[in-house]
Amino acid sequence: MARVVVDVMPKPEILDPQGQAVANALPRLGFSGIGSVRQGKHFELEVDDSVDDATLAKIAETFLANPVVEDWVVRRVES
Amino acid sequence: MARVVVDVMPKPEILDPQGQAVANALPRLGFSGIGSVRQGKHFELEVDDSVDDATLAKIAETFLANPVVEDWVVRRVES
Repeated sequence: MARVVVDVMPKPEILDPQGQAVANALPRLGFSGIGSVRQGKHFELEVDDSVDDATLAKIAETFLANPVVEDWVVRRVES
Repeated sequence: MARVVVDVMPKPEILDPQGQAVANALPRLGFSGIGSVRQGKHFELEVDDSVDDATLAKIAETFLANPVVEDWVVRRVES
């Protein structure tokens, strides 16, 4: 089994209300020096060694991200 | 400005219905060899260089994660 991580983030030109809420709350709560916060999704998959990168790319594009409004990165990690 | 990434995941003993929904859907849709899927949150912060690791740890623990049910990892990345 291999471990695969997929990070999905809203595209830069897309508003991110959740991230903005965090960014606005932090100074109010005494934390300064935070410029911007963006929130996305983080997936961890356990896949058979037989699953190739093309299949993983297809899974990420089709099921994990919405290509219209999101960017994503697929990477294999040491387990 | 430094870039900081915080990944927040449900603890292993916590059910993860979103991840499970993806894991169950994939074989039905023709993708085999996927063992498990867990879904969490991925935050990207832009912070001043003056913000130290202790402050970042505090922000992650207090605002980004729920320590009762979630684990999190804070890391600085090259911008």
